[in-house]
Amino acid sequence: MPTTTWNRHHILSLSDFTTVEYDAVLQTAASFQEVLSRRTKKVPTLQGQVVANLFFEPSTRTRSSFEIAAKRLSADTLNFAAATSSMTKGETILDTAKTYLAMGTDIMVIRHREAGVPNAIAQEMDRLGVKVSVLNAGDGQHEHPSQGLLDLFTICTLLDPANPRIELLKGKKIAIVGDILHSRVARSNIWSLTASGAQVHLAAPPTLLPKIFAEYFSEDATSLNRQLFLHWEVEPALRDADFVMTLRLQKERMTAHLLPSLREYHQLFGITRNKLRLCKPNVKVLHPGPVNRGVEISSDLMDDPEFSLIQAQVTSGVAVRMALLYFIGSGKL
Amino acid sequence: MPTTTWNRHHILSLSDFTTVEYDAVLQTAASFQEVLSRRTKKVPTLQGQVVANLFFEPSTRTRSSFEIAAKRLSADTLNFAAATSSMTKGETILDTAKTYLAMGTDIMVIRHREAGVPNAIAQEMDRLGVKVSVLNAGDGQHEHPSQGLLDLFTICTLLDPANPRIELLKGKKIAIVGDILHSRVARSNIWSLTASGAQVHLAAPPTLLPKIFAEYFSEDATSLNRQLFLHWEVEPALRDADFVMTLRLQKERMTAHLLPSLREYHQLFGITRNKLRLCKPNVKVLHPGPVNRGVEISSDLMDDPEFSLIQAQVTSGVAVRMALLYFIGSGKL
Amino acid sequence: MPTTTWNRHHILSLSDFTTVEYDAVLQTAASFQEVLSRRTKKVPTLQGQVVANLFFEPSTRTRSSFEIAAKRLSADTLNFAAATSSMTKGETILDTAKTYLAMGTDIMVIRHREAGVPNAIAQEMDRLGVKVSVLNAGDGQHEHPSQGLLDLFTICTLLDPANPRIELLKGKKIAIVGDILHSRVARSNIWSLTASGAQVHLAAPPTLLPKIFAEYFSEDATSLNRQLFLHWEVEPALRDADFVMTLRLQKERMTAHLLPSLREYHQLFGITRNKLRLCKPNVKVLHPGPVNRGVEISSDLMDDPEFSLIQAQVTSGVAVRMALLYFIGSGKL
Repeated sequence: MPTTTWNRHHILSLSDFTTVEYDAVLQTAASFQEVLSRRTKKVPTLQGQVVANLFFEPSTRTRSSFEIAAKRLSADTLNFAAATSSMTKGETILDTAKTYLAMGTDIMVIRHREAGVPNAIAQEMDRLGVKVSVLNAGDGQHEHPSQGLLDLFTICTLLDPANPRIELLKGKKIAIVGDILHSRVARSNIWSLTASGAQVHLAAPPTLLPKIFAEYFSEDATSLNRQLFLHWEVEPALRDADFVMTLRLQKERMTAHLLPSLREYHQLFGITRNKLRLCKPNVKVLHPGPVNRGVEISSDLMDDPEFSLIQAQVTSGVAVRMALLYFIGSGKL
Repeated sequence: MPTTTWNRHHILSLSDFTTVEYDAVLQTAASFQEVLSRRTKKVPTLQGQVVANLFFEPSTRTRSSFEIAAKRLSADTLNFAAATSSMTKGETILDTAKTYLAMGTDIMVIRHREAGVPNAIAQEMDRLGVKVSVLNAGDGQHEHPSQGLLDLFTICTLLDPANPRIELLKGKKIAIVGDILHSRVARSNIWSLTASGAQVHLAAPPTLLPKIFAEYFSEDATSLNRQLFLHWEVEPALRDADFVMTLRLQKERMTAHLLPSLREYHQLFGITRNKLRLCKPNVKVLHPGPVNRGVEISSDLMDDPEFSLIQAQVTSGVAVRMALLYFIGSGKL
Repeated sequence: MPTTTWNRHHILSLSDFTTVEYDAVLQTAASFQEVLSRRTKKVPTLQGQVVANLFFEPSTRTRSSFEIAAKRLSADTLNFAAATSSMTKGETILDTAKTYLAMGTDIMVIRHREAGVPNAIAQEMDRLGVKVSVLNAGDGQHEHPSQGLLDLFTICTLLDPANPRIELLKGKKIAIVGDILHSRVARSNIWSLTASGAQVHLAAPPTLLPKIFAEYFSEDATSLNRQLFLHWEVEPALRDADFVMTLRLQKERMTAHLLPSLREYHQLFGITRNKLRLCKPNVKVLHPGPVNRGVEISSDLMDDPEFSLIQAQVTSGVAVRMALLYFIGSGKL
C-alpha cells in the first residue's frame, strides 16, 4: 500500500476531493486490483471491524460490490434493507444509524433516495464525537462518489495500467450522455473529471438537463473554466470524444412526460456504432449499470470489448471500494 | 472468562433464572464488553459453529445484534426471514427448525409472533436427543429474555462498572411505563428485576395492564412479595424512582380502540423532563427501541446523555448476547 | 480427500454423469460428512473464493444448504434474491451474471424458474473464456442435480456407510411417487438411479406423468433398458420396493385442474404405513422437502426414524454440496 496520509474521515461527495486524494485512491485501488488477481484474494486489513451496509433504497449491485470489498479486507459485514427494517416501525433514520453505531459498527455504507441523508448521519456521528465513518453509496440526485471514483479508475488504468493517476485525463474529451438531471452518477463524475483537467461535454434532452447548469449553457465553449460544456443534442458532445459515459434512463421518466418514447430517446441519444464514428477511433464507452439494452446503448455495442468498458467498471468497483474502506477504516486503528 | 458452571441448555425465559445465572451473565458480558473496546474485537470461541437466526417475525435490530454477537465469537451465521421462506410453501415451523438442525445448526435464535414457539422447538430438539440450543429472541407477548438481561446489564454496569452484579439493584425503585399488556420486554424485566430485590412499579392505562396482574393490583403497596406494584397513573410509579423503563407503543393499539390518541397517551404516560422531576435526581431512562419520538418519550430527553441509557442498551445488547451464545455454545464442545 | 481427477467445470445436469463421477462425489461427500462430525467443522479449501447464490426463484432451504456448505469450506458467500434485485430495473439475467463475474465471483449457484437458465449462463461464461463455474440449484422443470446426488448419497451411505458407491444400488427397486411431470427432482433422480443399475418405477396420476415418457409406458416391464417403469397407480411401484421417493405436490396443481383434491390425492398416492406393507420390510422413504404433511406422506410416517430418511437427506445435502463446490472450486486454483 502507498504511504499516503489520508485525512478524510467520511466519503460523502467528490466536490472537494483534492488531486492528492484522487491519486491516493487510484494507486491504492491498483494495488488491490493486483491482490484480486492472486490465488488468495483476501488481506487482513479490516479484521474485526464491522462494515454495515445500510441500504434504505435497494440496490443489489452496489451492495454486493461493497460486501465483496469488505470481505476481501476481512471485515465482518451486516446488511440492512429498508423493506424488512424497523423503519416501518416509525424509527427515524438518525436513530437507526445510532443503533448501528451503538452495536459497534465501524463503517456505515449508506444509500438513500433522499439527497443529504449520508451527510446528515455523518454530521450526527461527528457531533457525538465517535469514530464511525460514513460512506455515501448514492443519495437521491446528489452524489455517488464511489461510482465517480471507479469510473475514473477504469479510465486511468486503461491509459496507464502500471501507474494510474488523474493527470492522464488532462485535455481528454469526455461526453456524458443521458438523463443528467436525475443522475447522481453524473454529478460525481463532473467533479472528478473537471478536477482532472478533462473537457466534459454533457448531452441530454432539454427536459433532462439540470436548470442549475443553465447559466453555463453553451453550444460553443463558453463555460465553467472552459471545461464543462452543455448540449441539447448528442453530436457535438461525441465529436472527437475519447470517452463516452452513457447514463441509465429510469423508465419512470416516460410516465412523467419528460420523454416521448424509449424508441425516440434511443434514436436521438442512444449510443450506437454509427454515432461512435463521430468520436476518436479508439473511443471507449462506459455505463454505470444496470443497462437497458437498446435504450441507452445498442445491445451489440455493449458486448463489444473493443468499445465497452462496462465489465471493467464493475471489476474496478471492488478494487476502488476496497481502497475507500481501507483509507477510512485503517484510520481508526 | 469466569469459570462459572453453566447448566442451562436453552434460554427461553427468565422466569426460573437463578441469582448465580444472572451474575454469570453480567460478569461474562462485562468481559466481552471489554473485548469490544479492543482493536481486534473478535474471539475464536465459537469458530466452526453455525448460529441460525430464524426470524419468523421480522426484526432488523435484534437480528443484527445477534448477528454481530455471533460474528464477534467467530461463528458462522445464517439468516432466515419468514417473508422469503418455504413457510409460504406450507411447511410447519417444527419442520423448518428440524431442517436447520439437519443442516448442522448449533444454536437457533428464534423470534415468532406466537408465544411459545421457541419452547416448542426446544422441546422437540430435546425429544430428538440432539445438542442444538434454542435462544428465544422474542415470542409473542410472552418473553424476550436477552432484552431483559441487557436491561439488567445496562443498569448494573452503571452502578458498578468494574463488577456488575444483581444485588446492586436491591431496594432500587424501577418504574416500567407503557403498554405492559402486550410487552414481552416488560414480562422478562419483571422476572429479572423482582429477582434482584428491586421495587418494580408498573404504570399503564387500564386497557394496557394485563388482567393476570389484577389480583396484585394496589395503589399502596399490597403486592407480590411487596415488590411488584401496579398503577393506572404514571406519577406514583415515577415518584423517587431510580430508573424508568418506558415501553414501545405499537400504533396498532389505537386502531384497536385501546387508546384515544397518541397525543393524549404522551400527555399522560410519555416521559418528559417535567415528569422526571418526580424521580430521584440522578434517574436514568431506558427504552428497548425502536422509539416513537414524542410518544413514549420526549425527543430531547431521548438524546440527553444525562438521562438516557438508550444507546448504552444497544451496546450492552451485543455483549450480553455474546455471553449467552458463549454459555450455550461452549457447552457443546 | 480422494485423488480423483475431476474434469467437469459446471454442474448443470446429471444426464451425462459417469460412474466415476458419481463415485467421486459419493466418496468425497463421505469425507466431508466425517469433517462435519468433528469439533471444528471447517476446512480452508476455498478460502478467499467467492460463492454467489443467485436465486432468481426464492428457496430458503436450498440457499441455506449451499451457504453452509460454502462457509464450511471457508469461502465468502454472497446472496442475491430476485425480489430485491436490479432485475426489477430491466437488466437481463445474463447481464446480472456477468456483473457478478466482473465482481470476482468464482462459483455461481443458480436457481431459476425457467429451465435452461444455468446452462445459458454457463455457456456465456465459457464463451467469455473465464474460469467461473456454474452450479444448477434447480431450473424450472428441468433438473436439480445436487438434489439427485444427495438422494443418491443418502441411499448409498445407508447401504454401506464406510464406502458409499453407486454399484450398491444395482438391482434395487426404487419407486418415485407423485408429480413427476413438474418435478426437476424426479428428472435428476431418474438419471442417477438408472445409471446405478436400479429398477426405477414412476407412479403418478395420468395428468402428472410427462408425455415424453409415454412411449416407454408400460404396466408390465417393457421399458427403457428394462430399468424405467411407469404406472398410473401406486401399488405396482411400491410392490417389493427397497426405497420410496415421494415428491412435493405444488398446491397450484389443484387450481390448474390437474387433480381433484388433496384428500383424494393422499388417498391414492400419499405414502402411508398401510401402503408401505407392499414394499420390502426394511423399506425407506425419501422426500426432497418441504413436506406437505398428510398430503404426500402421512405425518406419523414422516417422523418415524425406522422408515424416514428425510432428515438424513438434509444432512447429506450439506456434505454433497461441499463435495461439488470442492470439485469445481479447487480446479480453479
